[in-house]
Amino acid sequence: MTDETWMDEAACWEHLRGQDLGRLGYHLVDEVHIVPINYVVDGRRLIFRTMPGSKLLGIVMDSDVAFEVDGQDGDVAWSVLARGTGRILEGEESREAEQLPLRPWTSGAKFTLVAIDVQSVTGRRLEMSNRAVPAEP
Amino acid sequence: MTDETWMDEAACWEHLRGQDLGRLGYHLVDEVHIVPINYVVDGRRLIFRTMPGSKLLGIVMDSDVAFEVDGQDGDVAWSVLARGTGRILEGEESREAEQLPLRPWTSGAKFTLVAIDVQSVTGRRLEMSNRAVPAEP
Repeated sequence: MTDETWMDEAACWEHLRGQDLGRLGYHLVDEVHIVPINYVVDGRRLIFRTMPGSKLLGIVMDSDVAFEVDGQDGDVAWSVLARGTGRILEGEESREAEQLPLRPWTSGAKFTLVAIDVQSVTGRRLEMSNRAVPAEP
Repeated sequence: MTDETWMDEAACWEHLRGQDLGRLGYHLVDEVHIVPINYVVDGRRLIFRTMPGSKLLGIVMDSDVAFEVDGQDGDVAWSVLARGTGRILEGEESREAEQLPLRPWTSGAKFTLVAIDVQSVTGRRLEMSNRAVPAEP
């Protein structure tokens, strides 16, 4: 009954590589939180910078994370969800990741590089021309 | 060290009322998931339609949810996070909510109306003019 279709994995990664802003979902104790972040794709990892704060704490306490990007191409709305585990990069891994073309939202001094090791990607496309007409208020 | 400022609650609600697409974060057993949804603000509730599927199952199993909207006004990037509990609307409540000006992504037949009873809203604004220059690849 819907005009929704699922993307294959290659199309999902293409969309992930085509964006630089997405939304990170993470656990903070028993709560779910979402925050927009700038990121870059490196192989099957998503890399982002963060300052000390709740999302870093949340990932240290529970590494299960979700990362979502969405957009619209003409009449087609799409969204991709990557799921995996987040971990802080240290030492050589951190120095290597600093060379990636990352656009941080914050121009701060001290930051931590975090990698999401992606375990699954799913994506869907929806034809907007069949979008239901909203009822008037 | 950053140019980030926090919004007051009234400004957060103004941003929530100004959008019709946001991202729902929910638990699915021990995983966090994110999905874009069309929504409408009704008092201190956010209302959306959904089809049977993982987000409905997730909310029934664990009502703790997060809802995020973001955008850019000129040089200012902003994001708002609403946190609360999700619940399925039934009977009279559901019939009333059907009158709200909701824009669904899917033009399906059978849907369920869900309300997020918002318990907290937080928002931040970031001056983009001070956005750090990305390193070249």
